[in-house]
Amino acid sequence: MSNVELDQLRKQVDEMNLQLLDIINKRAELVQEIGRVKEKQGVNRYEPVRERAMLDLLKEHNNGPFLNSTIEHIFKEVFKAGLELQKDDHRKALLV
Amino acid sequence: MSNVELDQLRKQVDEMNLQLLDIINKRAELVQEIGRVKEKQGVNRYEPVRERAMLDLLKEHNNGPFLNSTIEHIFKEVFKAGLELQKDDHRKALLV
Repeated sequence: MSNVELDQLRKQVDEMNLQLLDIINKRAELVQEIGRVKEKQGVNRYEPVRERAMLDLLKEHNNGPFLNSTIEHIFKEVFKAGLELQKDDHRKALLV
Repeated sequence: MSNVELDQLRKQVDEMNLQLLDIINKRAELVQEIGRVKEKQGVNRYEPVRERAMLDLLKEHNNGPFLNSTIEHIFKEVFKAGLELQKDDHRKALLV
């Protein structure tokens, strides 16, 4: 296979990276909205049961090539980042 | 806002999780293909310059709410998982 074909594969990876970026940020906006709702209701932001349910759904739908353990690892980082975003929003709200 | 609306937001998050799962695994298949091409060409799997270029493109397109540092952190985990997959394929190829 020539480098032209390698470049084409890489171009496809770049496109997928941008799709992931888009969905990750849209997901983050939803998580911020959920944070605001919970804030009003006085509910805890971090809910391990909900996190477990999300991971179970993902593992149920995972057809690879990534192993469930890898999927779990990556998504836990996404969840953690979302929680940090909610905490930042909370801090900013306190400063208003 | 009622819990019905909270449930709807969560349903949307679940849908986005599944979209992310789908793209992450499709990306992983491409990365495996790239690994096979590099193997044939005798090129190194890990290329820091290529990783840097991917991150730069992502940061260029990042409109938040996640900060560039968070996007970089999440994607580095995705890259690392892809590299591990290539290494596993290599090990399996040696055993054939």
